[in-house]
Amino acid sequence: MVVVGAGFGGLSTVKGLRRADVDVTLIDRHNYHLFQPLLYQVASALLDPSDIAHPVRSILRGVPNCHFRLATVAGVDFERGIVRTSTGDLEYDHLVLATGSATSYFGNQALAGRAYGLKDLGEALALRARVLDVFEQASRTRSPDERRALLTFVIVGAGPTGVEYAGALSELVHHVLKRDFPDIDVEGVDIVLVEAVGSVLGAFAAGLGRRAEAALRRKGVRILFDHMVSEVRDGEVVFASGAHLAAQTMIWTAGVSADTPPGLAGIERTAQDRIRVNPATLEVVGQPDVYAIGDVAACPGPDARPLPMVAPVAIQQGQQVARVIAARTRGEAGPAPFRYRDRGSMATVGRNVAVAQIGPLRLSGLLGWMTWLFVHLMSLVSFRNRLLVLIGWAWNYVFYDRPVRLIVSPTPPSEIAGGRPTLP
Amino acid sequence: MVVVGAGFGGLSTVKGLRRADVDVTLIDRHNYHLFQPLLYQVASALLDPSDIAHPVRSILRGVPNCHFRLATVAGVDFERGIVRTSTGDLEYDHLVLATGSATSYFGNQALAGRAYGLKDLGEALALRARVLDVFEQASRTRSPDERRALLTFVIVGAGPTGVEYAGALSELVHHVLKRDFPDIDVEGVDIVLVEAVGSVLGAFAAGLGRRAEAALRRKGVRILFDHMVSEVRDGEVVFASGAHLAAQTMIWTAGVSADTPPGLAGIERTAQDRIRVNPATLEVVGQPDVYAIGDVAACPGPDARPLPMVAPVAIQQGQQVARVIAARTRGEAGPAPFRYRDRGSMATVGRNVAVAQIGPLRLSGLLGWMTWLFVHLMSLVSFRNRLLVLIGWAWNYVFYDRPVRLIVSPTPPSEIAGGRPTLP
Repeated sequence: MVVVGAGFGGLSTVKGLRRADVDVTLIDRHNYHLFQPLLYQVASALLDPSDIAHPVRSILRGVPNCHFRLATVAGVDFERGIVRTSTGDLEYDHLVLATGSATSYFGNQALAGRAYGLKDLGEALALRARVLDVFEQASRTRSPDERRALLTFVIVGAGPTGVEYAGALSELVHHVLKRDFPDIDVEGVDIVLVEAVGSVLGAFAAGLGRRAEAALRRKGVRILFDHMVSEVRDGEVVFASGAHLAAQTMIWTAGVSADTPPGLAGIERTAQDRIRVNPATLEVVGQPDVYAIGDVAACPGPDARPLPMVAPVAIQQGQQVARVIAARTRGEAGPAPFRYRDRGSMATVGRNVAVAQIGPLRLSGLLGWMTWLFVHLMSLVSFRNRLLVLIGWAWNYVFYDRPVRLIVSPTPPSEIAGGRPTLP
Repeated sequence: MVVVGAGFGGLSTVKGLRRADVDVTLIDRHNYHLFQPLLYQVASALLDPSDIAHPVRSILRGVPNCHFRLATVAGVDFERGIVRTSTGDLEYDHLVLATGSATSYFGNQALAGRAYGLKDLGEALALRARVLDVFEQASRTRSPDERRALLTFVIVGAGPTGVEYAGALSELVHHVLKRDFPDIDVEGVDIVLVEAVGSVLGAFAAGLGRRAEAALRRKGVRILFDHMVSEVRDGEVVFASGAHLAAQTMIWTAGVSADTPPGLAGIERTAQDRIRVNPATLEVVGQPDVYAIGDVAACPGPDARPLPMVAPVAIQQGQQVARVIAARTRGEAGPAPFRYRDRGSMATVGRNVAVAQIGPLRLSGLLGWMTWLFVHLMSLVSFRNRLLVLIGWAWNYVFYDRPVRLIVSPTPPSEIAGGRPTLP
């Protein structure tokens, strides 16, 4: 059988099948599993990529019946049971699609070409380099208008990613870059969080959203409610109201859609391009033995709306699919229908402020932050990562320093395509 | 005054002038200082870039009379005293050139296009990704010939960089990748160190070279003495003898030349494009108030041969130039002529084996390694780096694991040049 995607859902499936009588091939386009909830900390130069990314092969060492293949999926031949990949075809009896989600610009090419996304490691590294680079540019310009535009950061979307990045960016600017760039008056730095509706963290309880909003304002983040971006030009953001804002950097966290592989003819999609699945077994509607889990799947929750695109859903669905496949392999009846257990959600607004809702519990401030820290550290894949991340944080907490402020890209030999560290 | 280059030499100059009555602008094309002696550990996936690279601006916090500018140098107008950079002109009264050295392919474009260098962080990251990628390719090919070529690594040049990388690569393969790739028989991996003469570490005492050679052979590295590479084709290395070797990856450490900025009309160069300097004051011959230090300078040593391209030379020359400039600024007589104090040299051949010569002392094996470890840890720029590097090493030492095996590049927005994290 084949599992596509080494995110939370795919790894959960593979681990659940560790003792089953199946031979699993796990495909991913990257050679690492990414702990996405901390991605914004790479983009704000607090963590190294290796703090939140872990090689898939090293995770799979304890799973003898699973083989990894670095590849992108080009399509699926459902009739013959074949996955077509960039590195050859693979036959399957069971297929699990766990390809996650990606930044969506709603087809707006101008937006895609000018905005920074914050969904994968490459995007986070590019954003980190961009922030450092505009500060370098601002330090040498003599034009106040140009400097103002260079130091204006427009973050679109006040969901968890937008809120967490706005808070982290503000701390980077006011505590670290302020000392690195003595020529720049950081009071002139404008971090603008743009939200189409009238509140931040819309998915949280209203009280927690207001606390996060207050924490952001204390950090100097300007919040524009009821604003929508209609256009992005070179150095300028245009709102639906017609208002303009001179800004050289825009971060787009307002759109996400399923990262469905190409070539899935005849598969039913719902909003955000998610794949419609049977809510009990997570099988793709109309395709027996093909499953979709996590962000890529549209699985109705108790209120009939699709379950949110968060890690716990993907993990629990991976466990369910593993149970379904293991039962079928043994010729037994399947497990009880899938039911998502919501263990709560949380978001952090920088150093020692976070909001969390866990069942009836509502936490905020330092207590919320301690909870947030504990949950995330415990969830990180390996012990080494946990320890190093903790040291990195402790260092930052005590010294207010972010040591990862590097602008760097790989430079492969120039002539041959084979020399490039990219996929075929 | 202007200092070009934030390597060991440039930083040493700037720090030496901390209390002098001068206003310094430090230029570098990167925003970080690189601890080059450990670069091969990034290329062998043992260390993170941020373990050995440190933001220049953060180093300069304690140097109030120095400003940093991220730029490349396009040329120097010596008559008018102007440095032309990618981000505008800068006037100078004193100019210090400390631009270091770079991989040299002796003008061989085919070589440059196909070989991996190991002199800067971009090259190290590309090589790291390449090694991981050919293992991925080897794990899925069914052709034994193709697999053999994918798993053959030709390292050209048995100086410290070639020897250290060969040892580190062997350990990565035999202790880490062996477990990551259970399908690959690592006994079939061929690490070939190619050297034009008949010994390794030619600059060291002969006894130490032989010990390093023996250590490499114990690690399974194949050494080809008296071999020269004459040509590199796609998947094949050709030697001057006419012999061929099927290999998909070649690492070139056999050529280094000064990284002299363009547009230095009328400056005298010697072998390896180094700038001829006055051995007492380190002034560029024929250009008063212009100095060259470190790898970019050809400064004759006691035996009349130019001093080697190593960090201690650059550091000591930076201190001398700072003394010379400070004296001139005060209208005093200059310091005593420059004299290089050779404090010894060392090279490591992987886990717990190193060779070191310190004055009359010759160390090897574990004692050499402990010395090597101590000296390098003490030299790393910041305490945080020292601590994290030590933890990384300790982890690796105990668990034989390299956690940094990520294939990753920044992915900036696609459309605009201004969005790229590169220099103008």
